[in-house]
Amino acid sequence: MHRMKILGVITLAAASLVIGILIGRFAITPSQLSWLKKMSKDADPKYSQQLHQEIQAEEIHKNLQFFSRRPHIAGSVQDEEVLATYIHNTWKSNLHGSKVYNYTVLLSYPNASDPNYVSILSADGVESNLSDKVEKILSPDQNDSTVVNPFNAYSPSGVIVGDPVYVNYGTVEDFQYLTRDLAMNLTGIVAIARYGKIFRGDKVNNGANFGCAGMILYSDPADYVVGSLDRVYPVDWWLPGTGAQRGTLLKLNGDPRTPYYPSTNSAFYADEKDIKLPNIPVTPISYNDAVKYLSKMAGMEVQSAWKGKLNITYRVGPGFASPYETSKIKLYVKTYNVPKTIRNVFGFIEGQYEPDRYVLLGNHRDAWVFGAIDPSSGTATMMELSRALSKLLQAGWRPRRSILFCSWGAEEYGLIGSTESVEEMGKVLGPRTVAYINVDLALAGNSTLRALATPILHKLLFEAAKKIENPNPDEVRAGRKSVYDTWLKNQPSSHDPNIPRVGNLGSGSDYSPFLQLLGVSAADVRYHYDQKYSLSSYPMYHSVYETVDLVSRLMDRGFYYHQAVARLWGEMALRLADDVVLHLDCVEYVETLQRIVNEVQSLYGPKLLEHNISLSSVFEAVGEFHKAAKAFQSRIEKVNRENPLEVRKINDQLMQLERSFIDPLGVAGNLFYRHVIYAPNQHNLYAASSFPGLASAMFDIDNDPKQERRWQQVKKEISIIAYTIASAASTIQEPSSIGGGSTKH
Amino acid sequence: MHRMKILGVITLAAASLVIGILIGRFAITPSQLSWLKKMSKDADPKYSQQLHQEIQAEEIHKNLQFFSRRPHIAGSVQDEEVLATYIHNTWKSNLHGSKVYNYTVLLSYPNASDPNYVSILSADGVESNLSDKVEKILSPDQNDSTVVNPFNAYSPSGVIVGDPVYVNYGTVEDFQYLTRDLAMNLTGIVAIARYGKIFRGDKVNNGANFGCAGMILYSDPADYVVGSLDRVYPVDWWLPGTGAQRGTLLKLNGDPRTPYYPSTNSAFYADEKDIKLPNIPVTPISYNDAVKYLSKMAGMEVQSAWKGKLNITYRVGPGFASPYETSKIKLYVKTYNVPKTIRNVFGFIEGQYEPDRYVLLGNHRDAWVFGAIDPSSGTATMMELSRALSKLLQAGWRPRRSILFCSWGAEEYGLIGSTESVEEMGKVLGPRTVAYINVDLALAGNSTLRALATPILHKLLFEAAKKIENPNPDEVRAGRKSVYDTWLKNQPSSHDPNIPRVGNLGSGSDYSPFLQLLGVSAADVRYHYDQKYSLSSYPMYHSVYETVDLVSRLMDRGFYYHQAVARLWGEMALRLADDVVLHLDCVEYVETLQRIVNEVQSLYGPKLLEHNISLSSVFEAVGEFHKAAKAFQSRIEKVNRENPLEVRKINDQLMQLERSFIDPLGVAGNLFYRHVIYAPNQHNLYAASSFPGLASAMFDIDNDPKQERRWQQVKKEISIIAYTIASAASTIQEPSSIGGGSTKH
Repeated sequence: MHRMKILGVITLAAASLVIGILIGRFAITPSQLSWLKKMSKDADPKYSQQLHQEIQAEEIHKNLQFFSRRPHIAGSVQDEEVLATYIHNTWKSNLHGSKVYNYTVLLSYPNASDPNYVSILSADGVESNLSDKVEKILSPDQNDSTVVNPFNAYSPSGVIVGDPVYVNYGTVEDFQYLTRDLAMNLTGIVAIARYGKIFRGDKVNNGANFGCAGMILYSDPADYVVGSLDRVYPVDWWLPGTGAQRGTLLKLNGDPRTPYYPSTNSAFYADEKDIKLPNIPVTPISYNDAVKYLSKMAGMEVQSAWKGKLNITYRVGPGFASPYETSKIKLYVKTYNVPKTIRNVFGFIEGQYEPDRYVLLGNHRDAWVFGAIDPSSGTATMMELSRALSKLLQAGWRPRRSILFCSWGAEEYGLIGSTESVEEMGKVLGPRTVAYINVDLALAGNSTLRALATPILHKLLFEAAKKIENPNPDEVRAGRKSVYDTWLKNQPSSHDPNIPRVGNLGSGSDYSPFLQLLGVSAADVRYHYDQKYSLSSYPMYHSVYETVDLVSRLMDRGFYYHQAVARLWGEMALRLADDVVLHLDCVEYVETLQRIVNEVQSLYGPKLLEHNISLSSVFEAVGEFHKAAKAFQSRIEKVNRENPLEVRKINDQLMQLERSFIDPLGVAGNLFYRHVIYAPNQHNLYAASSFPGLASAMFDIDNDPKQERRWQQVKKEISIIAYTIASAASTIQEPSSIGGGSTKH
Repeated sequence: MHRMKILGVITLAAASLVIGILIGRFAITPSQLSWLKKMSKDADPKYSQQLHQEIQAEEIHKNLQFFSRRPHIAGSVQDEEVLATYIHNTWKSNLHGSKVYNYTVLLSYPNASDPNYVSILSADGVESNLSDKVEKILSPDQNDSTVVNPFNAYSPSGVIVGDPVYVNYGTVEDFQYLTRDLAMNLTGIVAIARYGKIFRGDKVNNGANFGCAGMILYSDPADYVVGSLDRVYPVDWWLPGTGAQRGTLLKLNGDPRTPYYPSTNSAFYADEKDIKLPNIPVTPISYNDAVKYLSKMAGMEVQSAWKGKLNITYRVGPGFASPYETSKIKLYVKTYNVPKTIRNVFGFIEGQYEPDRYVLLGNHRDAWVFGAIDPSSGTATMMELSRALSKLLQAGWRPRRSILFCSWGAEEYGLIGSTESVEEMGKVLGPRTVAYINVDLALAGNSTLRALATPILHKLLFEAAKKIENPNPDEVRAGRKSVYDTWLKNQPSSHDPNIPRVGNLGSGSDYSPFLQLLGVSAADVRYHYDQKYSLSSYPMYHSVYETVDLVSRLMDRGFYYHQAVARLWGEMALRLADDVVLHLDCVEYVETLQRIVNEVQSLYGPKLLEHNISLSSVFEAVGEFHKAAKAFQSRIEKVNRENPLEVRKINDQLMQLERSFIDPLGVAGNLFYRHVIYAPNQHNLYAASSFPGLASAMFDIDNDPKQERRWQQVKKEISIIAYTIASAASTIQEPSSIGGGSTKH
């Protein structure tokens, strides 16, 4: 009995010990291990829901009223002090940190006391038919002493008198038509070009190359008004006859005096005579003014594709018809360049586990006038997103990676703020930036989402858009509950009707330096008007009429479309910042490359064959990339999420894939554009070309007298494409593959 | 009593439970945690000891016999097939993997059946005093049918007849002395230049720029023989009168037909007419042959600094003296260019925790002839190091990071193999390479260690050298037990007598593309002859006499110096591959920059001041870098080694610091050299300049007629330096600093 008791006591003690060991081993988690477990999980989905709820349409409306109350052109007190300081203070108090970066850069303004204009000058020196020097005020909120009159930035000043010639959109093809087909000599003429199709800086560059002495840009209602010319603003959102489009002519990015280097205190500023600026005077006018000149033109009537929508007979010129046959057109431009200090403002949320990985969210701040669409719809949206994220921070959320908000200065002049920052901080941003998501403007219309992105971000875009409630009640009633549904319906992809169309990134906004100089994967999103309108842009683009009245009365009553963009942007940011394995998709890159190569083959193949050139090396490289991507994808699926270094290895490969498409020597020798797969079209900065180096080498090749050299260049471009794609494949292969793989351990 | 018992039993059970919990919690480690703990510790020092023991001098001797038994010039069967295959097979069986990379590149050879020579051509066309077409065989082991006769790679072929002019070393200053001080016209002359001081390709380039029609290069005993000319090889290791130095004239790196892009299957090869190759015929001769021409020269006697050690009166010319005054010198060169396939061989040891971080160890394989010093002393050493590491692998060692051995092809022609691989794989190597440690040749003498390195590797070099037993018994007896001790005694640093001198990296070997194109921290180590000899290189450099006999009989009996180099190399590799926190030292970079800036200030300051230019922006940037480095250093000391992502963050910063000194636009426009702090001297590829862009802008500035443009260039270079150093500072600041820091969480 006694022995039994002792045995019982021993058993009890042993059992207690075992239970204790089990508790100690499994029930109490050592702190590092709990940290490791936490780190291996994606963020709680509740934060995404909370973010959607936090984002308030009414707050965006209030933000827009604040940001677009007054004109805020780059370099102005309103933009660089009032607004920049407001953003800085807001982020300093809401987020983990905020910093202001100053750059002194060359800007350009019209002379306020000696305005630009156009007129008809008679042989005896009498001026008539003067264009309006200011845009007519159509609503009291446009009445502000700091409105800057219509002008084109970086136009030289000068007074040009010459014969007018109508050059349609001023594309290379348009000029070739005039000089080759019509055998016109354009030397010394004043070109009248309508806005649209291509970047205005390219129009001017083309004009100068073809000998024009000056250029007048106007907005033809064919490109900016749908329906009757009576139903324009303030009745509807179409461009009125008194509106003119401002805009830069700069064909490079960043401060033109410091190409490739930042305009910081220690900068070397090139002399203006040593830099490439437009060399012919240019000014924009309204379509009411354009009628004064186009209606009086001499010469043959234009072909139908050249006709606009003005109630006149469009003629090419040269010169005016009777009774103005001895008159000339006069272009009076007093635009001047001046160095100004501009500001970028950054707001920072520090990542909990990977503070050295940045998710960038950016929008520019400067506007040509009030900028209620461009860019303040985006700014208002960004500020609301940052406020909502600050609420998440208060609720205990901390992203895995860092989030960096960027408010850029002087975008309108040539992506100056973002380019200077990329030039200054590229050594840090390059190795650390996961992706850059840009919202230049949040809303150009209310029909559908419009997205531009590199292929690696398509999947994220689709998944995020599926989670965003459709802001259009009619669409919801029609069964399209999400932003994605309407997007898919309105803009199906041309190659796959089951997914929406995502456009390629040209160089139209601040994503350009990130993508083109650093190779950072990038996207740009906005709500857009209906494609069927085939407008050249939203009608009021860069005019004085871009006000809150326009937006809140005619485009987004209630600001629900803005809200949808804020939610989409926020959802993308959360996924990029929080997912353990980066939400980037290399498979879409493969498929896109396959499509591009096939297109290029059918476009150029036969012609290349005539010169014994084949694309086989490119096809091979794409095949290699395909194989690498498939293998990589299966490694991603099997990654051990509890091994932070294994996850980081995979993520670094995903992040760096886009980098591998960068050629540090530039595409076709242009150092502002280094992305071998996508860079702006040589003749249109706004549009992206696929394989831009090859496109540029093939452009109008038959008319080049130096045939051998041109075909050598074609061969070289093909070799660069093949090499670049092969090197992209290598970045997603197992790191051991460089040394023959790992055959044993 | 009963109650007491119950209390006792309860106490016992509770105590057991507590003990159990403690055991479970602390004594039993969950597997992830044990992995985490292991990963947070540096490697066991026993592996370092084992490595030292494994490395056998006798094995290196055997390797050298194998590698230098036969000539193995780039492009030959012996180098690209026999040796490359041997290395590949060895690594495939010893290491985790091995891979061969092929490149088809432009090489250059003398015509074996129509050899190059020099002669004196009389007015009536009679040739006399012909130079030897082959080097005389002085020992049977030099007798091999595949020996390639003396030549300079990439010389054009041609027959030049002209007046000889002695141009000393052929530096820019030498040519300026002849043309400015002596007012000589060098157009059409044949320059006779002695080897030494600067890269031979720069001599030829200078000669061509000053109008010379051809150039003869010879090795003056002043630069290659110490002591009596009787005591040369085979008696001692000095250059005999029959030896000639082969060598390339290429001033760029890599295949000259594919600059900046790899010579892979899909390469675009430029036409030879479109590439920059030497444009005057050149050939090297021995000093016995040089006497034939120099002894007969006309003209004034040279100044003392121009005198060599031949027993003649050195005269500048032009032309020959009586009785040869009507004779000319004839240069007969049949060297030709031809595409050949060369091979790089990689051997791989996969890292256990960070397989995507590479430590590179490299040496070239190709030799001009037998190459027992250059490069096979290095190859023999590398093969022994790889064998020793394979033994460590068998003993259970696995490095934290990957180690990649590189056997480069065609280095002698212009770093061709390494450059092509960097061009092909830069997208992978750039983001992943921790450091590149080169051993071009292991042994140029047996006096002391000689190291070239970027500042970030100095500390590692010192610590590693302290751990290596001194191979010199006399030195050990004198109390200098380590390689470091003798190094410090023989080559104290000029700025701090308490540390040895570390030289700057020029572009003399395969570290150049890594440092200059990718910004990878690099070093090059070897054992060296005594500085006091002031030789231009080890005497037998690139001659047929570089054989095992020379090395084993006259330079390293027993191969203990080779062994010391292998151990040092291995020790550096272990530390770089195994240490949790990377053994890179940013503080030394600060101090070096401070020294350079001060030197530059005293060198150029007063002259700059005359033009109202100051270096204050550079001083400021260095100050910023200093501050950042100090703060970074203290973060490194406090890093939580058990947080793998925190460690990785710090390590990425350490690894990327060197990258930040790269300007993708090249230094002074030269895209082969992009390191703003160190790049080769504009006029001597072998030597490193500090702030090479500025040095190049200031060079001979007073004699440039375009004064304004030159001083603008000086200002621009200063701004680039300031910008680059400031951006280097940013890479080691806290990642949160970009957004204003992290003020709250």
